[in-house]
Amino acid sequence: MTLAATPAATSVPRRIRLGMVGGGQGAFIGAVHRIAARLDDAFELVAGALSADAARAHASAAELHIAADRSYADYAAMARAEAARDDGIDVVAIVTPNHLHAPIAHAFLDAGIDVICDKPLTTTLEEALELVRHVRRSGRLFALTHNYSGYPMVRQARAMVAEGALGEIRVVQAEYPQDWLSTDLEASGHKQAAWRVDPARAGAGGSLGDIGTHAEHLARYISGLELEAVSAELSTFVSGRRLDDNAHVMLRYTNGARGLLWASQVAPGHENGLKVRIYGSKAGLAFSQEEPNHLRYAPLGEPPRLLTRGGPGSGAAAAHASRIPAGHPEGYLEGFAQLYRDVAEQIHARWQGRAPDPLACTVPTVEDGALGMKFIEAVVASSRADGRWTDARLRF
Amino acid sequence: MTLAATPAATSVPRRIRLGMVGGGQGAFIGAVHRIAARLDDAFELVAGALSADAARAHASAAELHIAADRSYADYAAMARAEAARDDGIDVVAIVTPNHLHAPIAHAFLDAGIDVICDKPLTTTLEEALELVRHVRRSGRLFALTHNYSGYPMVRQARAMVAEGALGEIRVVQAEYPQDWLSTDLEASGHKQAAWRVDPARAGAGGSLGDIGTHAEHLARYISGLELEAVSAELSTFVSGRRLDDNAHVMLRYTNGARGLLWASQVAPGHENGLKVRIYGSKAGLAFSQEEPNHLRYAPLGEPPRLLTRGGPGSGAAAAHASRIPAGHPEGYLEGFAQLYRDVAEQIHARWQGRAPDPLACTVPTVEDGALGMKFIEAVVASSRADGRWTDARLRF
Amino acid sequence: MTLAATPAATSVPRRIRLGMVGGGQGAFIGAVHRIAARLDDAFELVAGALSADAARAHASAAELHIAADRSYADYAAMARAEAARDDGIDVVAIVTPNHLHAPIAHAFLDAGIDVICDKPLTTTLEEALELVRHVRRSGRLFALTHNYSGYPMVRQARAMVAEGALGEIRVVQAEYPQDWLSTDLEASGHKQAAWRVDPARAGAGGSLGDIGTHAEHLARYISGLELEAVSAELSTFVSGRRLDDNAHVMLRYTNGARGLLWASQVAPGHENGLKVRIYGSKAGLAFSQEEPNHLRYAPLGEPPRLLTRGGPGSGAAAAHASRIPAGHPEGYLEGFAQLYRDVAEQIHARWQGRAPDPLACTVPTVEDGALGMKFIEAVVASSRADGRWTDARLRF
Amino acid sequence: MTLAATPAATSVPRRIRLGMVGGGQGAFIGAVHRIAARLDDAFELVAGALSADAARAHASAAELHIAADRSYADYAAMARAEAARDDGIDVVAIVTPNHLHAPIAHAFLDAGIDVICDKPLTTTLEEALELVRHVRRSGRLFALTHNYSGYPMVRQARAMVAEGALGEIRVVQAEYPQDWLSTDLEASGHKQAAWRVDPARAGAGGSLGDIGTHAEHLARYISGLELEAVSAELSTFVSGRRLDDNAHVMLRYTNGARGLLWASQVAPGHENGLKVRIYGSKAGLAFSQEEPNHLRYAPLGEPPRLLTRGGPGSGAAAAHASRIPAGHPEGYLEGFAQLYRDVAEQIHARWQGRAPDPLACTVPTVEDGALGMKFIEAVVASSRADGRWTDARLRF
Repeated sequence: MTLAATPAATSVPRRIRLGMVGGGQGAFIGAVHRIAARLDDAFELVAGALSADAARAHASAAELHIAADRSYADYAAMARAEAARDDGIDVVAIVTPNHLHAPIAHAFLDAGIDVICDKPLTTTLEEALELVRHVRRSGRLFALTHNYSGYPMVRQARAMVAEGALGEIRVVQAEYPQDWLSTDLEASGHKQAAWRVDPARAGAGGSLGDIGTHAEHLARYISGLELEAVSAELSTFVSGRRLDDNAHVMLRYTNGARGLLWASQVAPGHENGLKVRIYGSKAGLAFSQEEPNHLRYAPLGEPPRLLTRGGPGSGAAAAHASRIPAGHPEGYLEGFAQLYRDVAEQIHARWQGRAPDPLACTVPTVEDGALGMKFIEAVVASSRADGRWTDARLRF
Repeated sequence: MTLAATPAATSVPRRIRLGMVGGGQGAFIGAVHRIAARLDDAFELVAGALSADAARAHASAAELHIAADRSYADYAAMARAEAARDDGIDVVAIVTPNHLHAPIAHAFLDAGIDVICDKPLTTTLEEALELVRHVRRSGRLFALTHNYSGYPMVRQARAMVAEGALGEIRVVQAEYPQDWLSTDLEASGHKQAAWRVDPARAGAGGSLGDIGTHAEHLARYISGLELEAVSAELSTFVSGRRLDDNAHVMLRYTNGARGLLWASQVAPGHENGLKVRIYGSKAGLAFSQEEPNHLRYAPLGEPPRLLTRGGPGSGAAAAHASRIPAGHPEGYLEGFAQLYRDVAEQIHARWQGRAPDPLACTVPTVEDGALGMKFIEAVVASSRADGRWTDARLRF
Repeated sequence: MTLAATPAATSVPRRIRLGMVGGGQGAFIGAVHRIAARLDDAFELVAGALSADAARAHASAAELHIAADRSYADYAAMARAEAARDDGIDVVAIVTPNHLHAPIAHAFLDAGIDVICDKPLTTTLEEALELVRHVRRSGRLFALTHNYSGYPMVRQARAMVAEGALGEIRVVQAEYPQDWLSTDLEASGHKQAAWRVDPARAGAGGSLGDIGTHAEHLARYISGLELEAVSAELSTFVSGRRLDDNAHVMLRYTNGARGLLWASQVAPGHENGLKVRIYGSKAGLAFSQEEPNHLRYAPLGEPPRLLTRGGPGSGAAAAHASRIPAGHPEGYLEGFAQLYRDVAEQIHARWQGRAPDPLACTVPTVEDGALGMKFIEAVVASSRADGRWTDARLRF
Repeated sequence: MTLAATPAATSVPRRIRLGMVGGGQGAFIGAVHRIAARLDDAFELVAGALSADAARAHASAAELHIAADRSYADYAAMARAEAARDDGIDVVAIVTPNHLHAPIAHAFLDAGIDVICDKPLTTTLEEALELVRHVRRSGRLFALTHNYSGYPMVRQARAMVAEGALGEIRVVQAEYPQDWLSTDLEASGHKQAAWRVDPARAGAGGSLGDIGTHAEHLARYISGLELEAVSAELSTFVSGRRLDDNAHVMLRYTNGARGLLWASQVAPGHENGLKVRIYGSKAGLAFSQEEPNHLRYAPLGEPPRLLTRGGPGSGAAAAHASRIPAGHPEGYLEGFAQLYRDVAEQIHARWQGRAPDPLACTVPTVEDGALGMKFIEAVVASSRADGRWTDARLRF
C-alpha cells in the first residue's frame, strides 16, 4: 500500500472539550457525530444531556465513559454548569429532533459556548432568522452539519468552480432519490419514518426538508450561486401520508443559471442517491454521493476525466479534506468528520491567535441554515400556488 | 462465441420496395434510414427524389445504384410515377427537413403509398392534426421514426410496465443532455447546427424540438402514461441564439404520476445522454441510451438487477427486437432498423392476409407525432406564461 | 440529434458480388456475415452453397432471394461455376464448421476467388501453414473475421499504441469470460455447445479455441507485440466434458512484455466479457467488448480519460471504422461489418488501380489465423507439460 | 437521511488500553491504526514506543496526548514497564518496518500482552513459523491487519461462499494493480518507495510482498480455499529496480479450483485496484476494493444483482461490519477499524467470560501471516525455476 504524507499535526495542548445534547441510547445521528468528532482525535466528549429522561441520559453517559457529574438531564442546566467549570466544554453538539435545535442553541450561545448543530437548522424560517441574529451578536462559532459538503471531491468541485474551470455556470441538476418510504413505513411504527412525516416534528417539508435541503445546499455549496426563485410541485404518493414524499423544483439563480431539483423517498432502487451536476460555458462536473471518491470533469471539447480523491488533477481543497491516499476510499463518516476537523482548526486558530486555514472556513453556517429554511418555505409556497415562481432570496 | 437461434425467416416472395425523399449526397439521416432498411434485408431501395436539385438527386441515386429512370427531382412526380408502375414502391421514407414532411406525406398518401417519416412529424400542431386525419382516411401505414423506441431494452421496459412489474407508476424522470451547442456553432456555418436554431426551419422548439421530443416520446412509450399538463422554462444560454438550448419541464400525467424532463444542448460532457427512469409502487427501471444493452430493474426490497438484452430476465419483447445473443452489443442502427423490421412485418402480414405479430405493432404512429407537436406547443406556451401549468392532452 | 458528415462515398460501378459457403437455415454465424456484408451496401449476395444438403441449400437460397441457378449444394461445383461466369462472385464467405474452412478455401483460391473466412482458420497448425502458402502463391485477398478488431475503439487503441502514446509496452492483461457452458449444456442436445466441446470438430482447444484465440488476437492486434512463449493450465470443470472450459495462460512477448490471458466458459455472470488492458511506460489503455464505444486511457500522472467513439480525443482510425456520431452506440454487427467494409475498400482499390486506404489494411489475415493456431498448439502443449514455457513464435 | 439502528453497545467498564510501537511523526500506517482504533471508541492509546529515536518518540507521544511517563524509546523497555503497571496496556499495535515485527511481537507476547501487527507478518517464512509457535504457546490474541478483510461486502462475500451460494468453487481471479512505481520513484528519495524495493527491508517480494499478499489473502479469506501450488513469473520493468514490480501467478487450490493472480505497481491508471472474483458452479461474485460498498452477485441463469452494504440481500456478516445505513458509503478506514472492533469484541468477551460473537472471529491471525509468507516464498521459488509449479501448502 502506498500512503501519502501525514497531515501536519497541529500542536495543541489538549483536545477540544465537547458536550452533546441528544444522542442517547437508541438514537443514531448522535453516534455519527461522536464518530465524526473522534475520527481526527481533536475532540473528547466530556459532558452530555443525552436524553430528557434522566435515567436514560445517565445510562447513556456511562456507556460513553462520560463522568457521572457531567451527565445532565436538562440542557439548560448543562449550559450553565459547563460554563461555570474551569474544564467546561468548549463546544456543544446539538443532535436532538429539529424543533429543539433553536432553544438549545440559544441556551449555549448565552452561555458563551460554540455550537455544532445538526440540520435542518430549525422548523421555521422565523426561528432561523432569530438564531442568525443571536449567533451574530454572540460572536460564537456556529456550524451546521450539512455533512455532504465535507467530502473531498465536493471541496474539489467547489474549488474548480470558484477558480473558473467551468466558465459561467448555466445549468444545475440536483437530485436526491431514496426508496425507503415507498410504502407507509410510518404506519408500522418505524421511528425514523414516523417523525419525518409528522408536520409537527418535521416542519412543512417531508422529503423536501429531510433530503431536498441537502441537495439544495450541496448545489449551492459547489456552484457558489444564489438562488433567486423556485417553481415547485410537491407530491404525496403513499396514501395517508401527511407530508410530501416527492419534490420537483425548477430553480432560477440570480446569475441567470437555471436548474432542476428532484428529491424523492419513493424511488425504488435508490438508497441515498444524492447527485449534483453543474454545467458551465467551459466544462461540466458531476458528483455522486454514493461514489464520493470520484468527480467527473468534462472540459468542453476534451475527453471527460475521472478525478479521484488524491489522484492527478485533485488539488489542495481535496487534499485538505482527505486522510489517506488515492484508491483507498473514504466515505460518509470521513466527510462528516471533516466538518468537525474544520471546526477544530477554527478553534485552534483562535487559541493560537492566528487566522484559520481558509480551506477550513467553508463549513456550513447558521446563515446557510436560514437559506435552507427559506428554500423550504418558498418551495412549499410555490407548490401551494400551483407552481408559481416564488422568491427564494434572503438578505441578512 | 455463443449465438442464439436465427429469428424465424418470414417467407416472402420479394423484398419490400422502398423509395426515399431527401437524403441526397451530404445528408445524413437519409443514410441512417438506408442502413436501417437494409439491415434485416426486408427492403430494397429502388427509387428516390433524393434532392430538389436535379443534378444532385441523380448523382446521389447513381451512387446508391438506383436506376436512372427511378431517380426523381420532384417528390410529387415521384409519387405519381411510382404509383403508376407495376413494380412501384411499396413505401416511401421521408427524410427531408421538417417543414417538408407534411406536404410530402400528403402526396404519397394520396398516391396510396405507405409512409415512414422522420421525426418530428411537422412544424406545427395544426399540420400534424391534418396529417393524422389524412392517414386515418387513407388507411395507409404511417410510421414515425422515434428510433429510440426500437431498442430491445426499451421494448423490455415497456413490456414490464405493461405487465405491472412496477405497480402504479408514480414518478418519471426523463433527460436528454448533449453538449454540441455549448458554443455558437451556428455562427461558424455548421449546417446541422444552423437549421436547428432557426425557427423557420426547426419550429418553435430548439433543444425542445430536436431532443426534448425524443425524451418525451420515450418516457411515454415506456410508461404508457398520458401527459396531462406541463410547467416549463425554456432558456437560451448562447448569446444570439434564436431558440432554446435548454428546457426544464415539470410533468403531470393523467394517472397522478409526476415527472421532470430536462433537455439541453449546452451540457458539457454529454454526447447523447438520453435517459428515462420510471418509478412505481413496486419497482424502478432505468434505461440509458448510451448503454442500450442494459436495463436496471430494482424491485422494491430486493437487490437491483441488471437485465441484459438476451440475458436472463429479458423476455419476448426484447428478443423480438434483437438479432444477436446477449453480450454482443447492439446499438443505435439496430434500434433504428427495428422500426423498419416492424414495418416490414406489418406489410408482410398484409400481403399474407394475416394479423401482424403484436410485438411489431408498437412502432410510433402519426398520432404519436401529433402528441409530440402538442408537447412542444404546450411547453412553449407554458414557458412564455412564466411556467403556468398548461394542458398537454390531445384527443383525436 | 447531431450527426457527423457522411463517410465519403466511393464511386464504384456496382456492388461486390458475394458468395457464401455454409450459413443455411438454422445456422447463425452465416446470418451475421450477411448482415455485416449488407450494412455498408458494398456487397450483394448472389450465390451460395448454403448447405451440403441440397434441399436445405436451395430452400435457404430462396429465402435469401438468391437465384435458383446460383444455389449450389457442393462448394467445389460452386467455385468452378462461379469462376466461369462473367457475373461470377468476386469473393466467397466461408462460414462452415471449422474443419471445412481449409478445403473450401483451397477450392476458391484455386478458382481465383478472394476469400473471407470465419475464425479459427483451421483445426490444425499444419493445415493453417499450408493455407498461408496457398494464399501467398495465389495473390488473392484472404480475410479472417476476428471481428472484434473491427471495433472503432479497438482501432483507436491500436493507433495510440502504434503512435507511442503508451511508451514501451510492459504488461498485457487479456480476458474473455463467458458463463454459458457452466453446466453440461452439450448433454442436452444444444447444437452450438455440442460441436464446441467435440475435439473432432472443434480441434484441440475448447474455450481456448472458441474464445481464447479471440482474446489472444485482440491483444496482439492492439499491442502490436509478438508472442514469444506461453505457460498454461487448461481445465475442464464440467464433468464429462471432453475439452477445456477454462484456460489460464501466462504470456511472454518478444519485447520483454509480460501478460496474462484468461478464457472461461464457466464464469457465471459473464456473457461475453472480452477485455484487453495494455500498460506501457507512459500510459494504460482498457477496452471492454461489452462497452465498445469507450476506451479508457490513463496517461501516467494525469487523470484517466474516457475516449468515446467520435468524441474528443478519438482520431482517424476510430473515425474510419464509424458510421454515426459520438453518443449513438455502435455494436457488434457494425464492428463485424467493418471487416467487410475494409475488404470492400481493398477490392475497390484494386478495381480502380490505386492503393487502398491504409486504415482499411489491418483486417486480420491468413497469417493471423496461423498465429492463432500456433497459440492454441503451444498452450495445449504447455498445459500437457505441466505449464512448461513453450515457444509460441511462428516464422513465415 | 435514514439511519439504521445503533449497534448494540457493549457495556464494558473501560476502554481497552492500547500501546503502539512505531508510528512516530511522519510515519503513516501508524496514523491509520490510530484512527482505526479510535473509530468505534473501544480503545484508548495510552503508551507508545513511537520511534527508536528518543527525542522523536517523545515529541510524537506529546502530540498524541500520551503521558510522558508512558512514552518509551525502546520497545523492550515498554513491554516490561507496561506489563508491570496496574493500568498497563492490554494490547500493542506493531506498525514498524516489517523486519522488526517479529522481535517486537516476541517481546510483547513474553510480557503477556496481546498483539495487533501490521502485515506482512515477517520477512521470512522461518520467522513467521517461529512466531506462530510462540503465539500458540502464549495463548495471547494475535491479529494481523490484512485490513481488506474488514470490509462489510468482503464479509458478505465470505459468508455467501461459506453458505454454498456459489456451489463448488472453480475459478478465482485476483488482481491488485497500482501505478505509483511506474517510474523509478525510489531514485528520487521517495521514502515509501525506497524501502519497498529494498530486499533488506522488504523481503524477497516487491509488488508481490507489498500488495500481492493482500490479493492472495483476500482471495483466500473470501473463498475459504487452500492454496496447493503456484506457477509464477516475477518481472522488474523499471530499470535498476531490485525487486519485482509485476507478478503473474497461476494458482492451484486443493479442491481442484484454479486461479490467476496479478499484482503490479507499473500499471498506469490504477490507484489501488484490488479486485477478487470468485466463480462457482452456481454463481459468480465480484468485489472491487475501490467500490467497497457493492458486491456483484450473479447466480447462474438469473440477472446479476448488485448487493449493497446494508441493502436488500446483505446479511448478518455485512451488518456486523457496518456502522451506517445503505447508501452512505463506508471506506478504507472503516474496514480497517473493523479489525480493531473485532479484536475489541474478543477482548471484551474474555473480560466477561463469554464466547465472542463468531462474526468477530474471522480477523486474520498469525497463521494467516505465515501462509502469506509461504505464498511469497513459493512464488519467488517458482519464478526462479522458470515457472515450475511449486508447493504452497503449509501445515501447522
